[in-house]
Amino acid sequence: MRYELYYWPEIQGRGEFIRLALEEAGADYLDVARGRSGTDKLIRLMGRGEAPPFAPPFLKAGKLLIGQTANILLYLGEREGLAPANAAGRLWTHQLQLTMADFLVEIHDTHHPIGSSFYHEDQKPESKRRAAGFLQSRAPKFLGYFERVLAANRSGLLVGRRVTYADLSLFQIVEGLRYAFPKAMRRLEKKHPRLVALHDRVAARPRIAAYLASPRRIPFNEMGIFRQYPELDK
Amino acid sequence: MRYELYYWPEIQGRGEFIRLALEEAGADYLDVARGRSGTDKLIRLMGRGEAPPFAPPFLKAGKLLIGQTANILLYLGEREGLAPANAAGRLWTHQLQLTMADFLVEIHDTHHPIGSSFYHEDQKPESKRRAAGFLQSRAPKFLGYFERVLAANRSGLLVGRRVTYADLSLFQIVEGLRYAFPKAMRRLEKKHPRLVALHDRVAARPRIAAYLASPRRIPFNEMGIFRQYPELDK
Repeated sequence: MRYELYYWPEIQGRGEFIRLALEEAGADYLDVARGRSGTDKLIRLMGRGEAPPFAPPFLKAGKLLIGQTANILLYLGEREGLAPANAAGRLWTHQLQLTMADFLVEIHDTHHPIGSSFYHEDQKPESKRRAAGFLQSRAPKFLGYFERVLAANRSGLLVGRRVTYADLSLFQIVEGLRYAFPKAMRRLEKKHPRLVALHDRVAARPRIAAYLASPRRIPFNEMGIFRQYPELDK
Repeated sequence: MRYELYYWPEIQGRGEFIRLALEEAGADYLDVARGRSGTDKLIRLMGRGEAPPFAPPFLKAGKLLIGQTANILLYLGEREGLAPANAAGRLWTHQLQLTMADFLVEIHDTHHPIGSSFYHEDQKPESKRRAAGFLQSRAPKFLGYFERVLAANRSGLLVGRRVTYADLSLFQIVEGLRYAFPKAMRRLEKKHPRLVALHDRVAARPRIAAYLASPRRIPFNEMGIFRQYPELDK
């Protein structure tokens, strides 16, 4: 079966967590919106009757249309061997992914504290304040949590001894934070050596390395979740 | 098996979505933190070794310790018959729950746009701006989405023909929005009759009605997700 991924074609965004899982699995997939008339196709499918997704990304897998990043990963994890086979391990992997989803909202909101109804340019002073609190207390809290999980598991991975989608997602978060907050991350990484090691280990996996070096990997930019606004990086 | 729910004892918050599911299922559960030395027990369990939760709520179910609201509901949905038995139906129910989780973050952030590192009192002008954008565009977008899902399903419920945890959660969101934004909701409810009907249907279910009338239901207050700040309700 060929999966169809539907996501905005210009950004990594939340779609990137799905792309990384599909790439690591060596799955056959089409990144629909990056093809001809792709965005039209995406918008058309969002209006679909019975089970419409609220927003991209969503994944077409045969007759299934699955929305919500963490939900898509829950499905792919089981189907593509990117999560433990037992129920407890699957729930724990998903729990970690949902905690990353919470973290991502807070990362995004450093440049959009007043909400996505307004441009970043219309909320710059508020962004500075929110980013300061984020770097001061929230980012260390989340990063410290994942460092603690890695320390407890001892395989160098988040769950068990095989790579899961949660590891891929944590790689992407480290990568994105380095792009958005290079100064702060130099400081923070010193306290989170296991996180850095996990990042490097994922980056070195053959399929991930090939993907990152390919044109399929969209570069970071100032339209996605992770944005490089130097005034927010203290 | 007796479930143990761990959540802050003074608020409905995210724990309420779990309470509603346990109550509707008629499950045997203990709301641990509301008992003697309960908050100490909660904090102690958060420090647990192998699979620590990032934050409450979390649920102890035998040997399992499950965190993240939507993840707990995924588990309870399957175990307590509050989700369809087939995989496609379970994923769709979970997808709706995750969209509600996104909505909840935006509801919370109307009073905390600069982040939870600061008191609401230190972000009042920003809250006004964020709440205005929320009521103007985000709340109608989310409510309109769920109205559309209800219209497509035609049973009056979100998924299939039996009550799921997603229905209970949507009831709670309507209830909370009425508390936080009574004026705006009077206006918005007119455009979302199916949502109002679902709310009433859930409220009338015998176990839910008994729960809402009991001291187990904590009243809304200004420490939870839904807060009544009249200056934000335009």
